[in-house]
Amino acid sequence: MAIESIERLTVQLGRLPGIGRKTAARLAYHILGVPEEQAQELAQAITDARSKVHNCPVCGTYTDGELCEICADPRRRTDVLCVVSDPRDVIAMEKTREFNGRYHVLFGALSPMEGIGPKDIKINELLERCREGEVKEVILATNPDVEGEATASYIARLLKPLGVTASRIAHGIPIGGNLEYTDEVTLAKALEGRRNL
Amino acid sequence: MAIESIERLTVQLGRLPGIGRKTAARLAYHILGVPEEQAQELAQAITDARSKVHNCPVCGTYTDGELCEICADPRRRTDVLCVVSDPRDVIAMEKTREFNGRYHVLFGALSPMEGIGPKDIKINELLERCREGEVKEVILATNPDVEGEATASYIARLLKPLGVTASRIAHGIPIGGNLEYTDEVTLAKALEGRRNL
Repeated sequence: MAIESIERLTVQLGRLPGIGRKTAARLAYHILGVPEEQAQELAQAITDARSKVHNCPVCGTYTDGELCEICADPRRRTDVLCVVSDPRDVIAMEKTREFNGRYHVLFGALSPMEGIGPKDIKINELLERCREGEVKEVILATNPDVEGEATASYIARLLKPLGVTASRIAHGIPIGGNLEYTDEVTLAKALEGRRNL
Repeated sequence: MAIESIERLTVQLGRLPGIGRKTAARLAYHILGVPEEQAQELAQAITDARSKVHNCPVCGTYTDGELCEICADPRRRTDVLCVVSDPRDVIAMEKTREFNGRYHVLFGALSPMEGIGPKDIKINELLERCREGEVKEVILATNPDVEGEATASYIARLLKPLGVTASRIAHGIPIGGNLEYTDEVTLAKALEGRRNL
């Protein structure tokens, strides 16, 4: 009963993150059941996204223009860079409407466990941008996990000799959070990062 | 920061069952991050599945041949039909290796709530097959929910005048199940369906 093209679709869908074998089969059968145009729209959307979207040559985030909207915007400050691991983090930061500088996407974080070293992520490109002289501060907004922390301190060390200030986003209790249910590491960070009122 | 083709891919992925807006965005960004060939393989698998796979003209299940493997197999009994709601149910039944007849896929179940009536599922096609005279028994293997039960009893009523025996798969406690945690409807069905040892 195994039909080769259904099997192949199931395998391909199963390569997506968080989609197991059973979910992939369910999605494959769903795709067989929807109107032909809808299936084609999905296939086309995949092809189009891959052909139209590329990395901004300056910051690395995804764009369908020559430069991304942020790098192309002359009103954004060029003296402060926010360094993130992933293009999605740029979107998350932009939603705050609190940052008016530019970005640099690393595409990953240092992880000796997974064999990801400094050359595997866009650290050299960041140093290059900093060497051009315009950048005065780099905000390290990598994730607050082991890899993100290691990446932030590694980059901070490299920025010092360039005369660029490196800062790290604050860790603490999320708004709406609860002391009782906050893990001790976060709580320790919240205490350490306390500010006078 | 909204990039039209990423947005469109997110919308298309979000139309898949069980994929919400956030998951769709995560999948879209994943697709942008994988090697180009892998994205193309996924798009191609969707297109191929839709162009190569069609419904078996006899039983309705998905096939890439003229007839499905089961309808094309002369060793399968033609006097007993197993009626299921979905092509996936054919695969589930086949896994038991206990059924040696043929199938009929309804593509749905009666549901007045959702406006699905007898003409919206393949009931007429089933009756047509039964009228040809070869079929002696129809095993109604629709799901054990309200719609499945209603569909089974509706079909059973139509089969009686044709001189075809209609049977319903047994309901009861699943193997490995636990009396204590079995809902009362299933338990009542298990009691009702008891057999002498």
